[in-house]
Amino acid sequence: MTDSINLEAADSDRVLYTYFRSSAAYRVRIALNLKGLNYCAVPVHLVRGGGQQHQPEYRAVNPVGLVPSYRENGRTIRQSLAIIEYLDECHSEPPLLPDTPFARAQVRELALSIACEIHPLNNPRVLKYLEREIHTDEAARLAWMRHWMKVGLEGLETLLADRGSSGRFCHGDQPTIADCCLVPQLFNARRFEVDLSNCPRLLAIAAACNALAPFQDAHPSRQPDAET
Amino acid sequence: MTDSINLEAADSDRVLYTYFRSSAAYRVRIALNLKGLNYCAVPVHLVRGGGQQHQPEYRAVNPVGLVPSYRENGRTIRQSLAIIEYLDECHSEPPLLPDTPFARAQVRELALSIACEIHPLNNPRVLKYLEREIHTDEAARLAWMRHWMKVGLEGLETLLADRGSSGRFCHGDQPTIADCCLVPQLFNARRFEVDLSNCPRLLAIAAACNALAPFQDAHPSRQPDAET
Repeated sequence: MTDSINLEAADSDRVLYTYFRSSAAYRVRIALNLKGLNYCAVPVHLVRGGGQQHQPEYRAVNPVGLVPSYRENGRTIRQSLAIIEYLDECHSEPPLLPDTPFARAQVRELALSIACEIHPLNNPRVLKYLEREIHTDEAARLAWMRHWMKVGLEGLETLLADRGSSGRFCHGDQPTIADCCLVPQLFNARRFEVDLSNCPRLLAIAAACNALAPFQDAHPSRQPDAET
Repeated sequence: MTDSINLEAADSDRVLYTYFRSSAAYRVRIALNLKGLNYCAVPVHLVRGGGQQHQPEYRAVNPVGLVPSYRENGRTIRQSLAIIEYLDECHSEPPLLPDTPFARAQVRELALSIACEIHPLNNPRVLKYLEREIHTDEAARLAWMRHWMKVGLEGLETLLADRGSSGRFCHGDQPTIADCCLVPQLFNARRFEVDLSNCPRLLAIAAACNALAPFQDAHPSRQPDAET
């Protein structure tokens, strides 16, 4: 594999620019699979060659150099939650949001609690800044990641414990956008050995999700660019 | 003013738990004003008394202790974008999202680029961690904030420059969720003297927004808890 991005697939109807370990890309893979939509994965390696996301070919797709980006019939959408809401609006079955405004708000609240409060702090570019500009050592960066994941996931556990709407999944008995965000975040938490002993409900929901093929097929280890 | 939160207003139909300088609360204030909805503001002081957001009264409203929270008829929604989408679904005029899925995705992409990539890194709790756990000095924390705001806002400028859909506002000639996020983020950027010389389009959009009463009335300086 060279350091260049293989953009051949960019002519397909549906293209996901992805990285196997990116939890934001993982969210979109789950949503595409839940909707039963075929897509072509274009891997963007976030580490190799200083990060392929910084190459001009990818900057033309996503000027801020973040993964994922989604192209459909030549039009690009960035930001995982914008992509998932788009897929949900274009393909109604199965719905990834409930059908009343308040229930939808509850689901979005959970998804955004992950996407806005946990994930951005553990993004590779943030860790790079902590290393290069603030000169933290690896232990301090690991403590940083674990702190924000633990605080955020325990907050989510409390939110779910307080609401009767939480069932087999984050909301009721059908996966929603919230589950699309939860499973990748828990994968990441496990990877960095975060203490999840206070999050039994989150773990039970993730287990229910991971019993389903759309979640299994979206797992980092099953991606074309997976590394061990 | 005591260190306790005044929860008397919590019986009103619409309650916003807010802090004048919180840019996430500022987004929701703009949306409420654009919709012409009256609400009762309950200030939660993020600094005084170690932060009122940590008091049990507020933790009962928002277990993760973040501002804003919104209560309507006794039901709570947290996360500013979940609140704004809810308001938009319940009150159709004026719409804060365009009416086709791709255009909606474009607007959400801009809003999430601020809410997920810029704002979370400059949250007071993150700055507190950088101070107490990583022992950075004030200059390093200021450089951190300026870095993420500059990178994020310049990325947004590029995104907007690339699309024909950007008009007087982020999308076309009517304010959307993207403008609700942009104006508070630019207020914050100016407060910390971020170099915005590469963002002329963002500044022009913010000027168009700030000429409108709903944006003016949501400004931090006009809030009941404003401080100089």
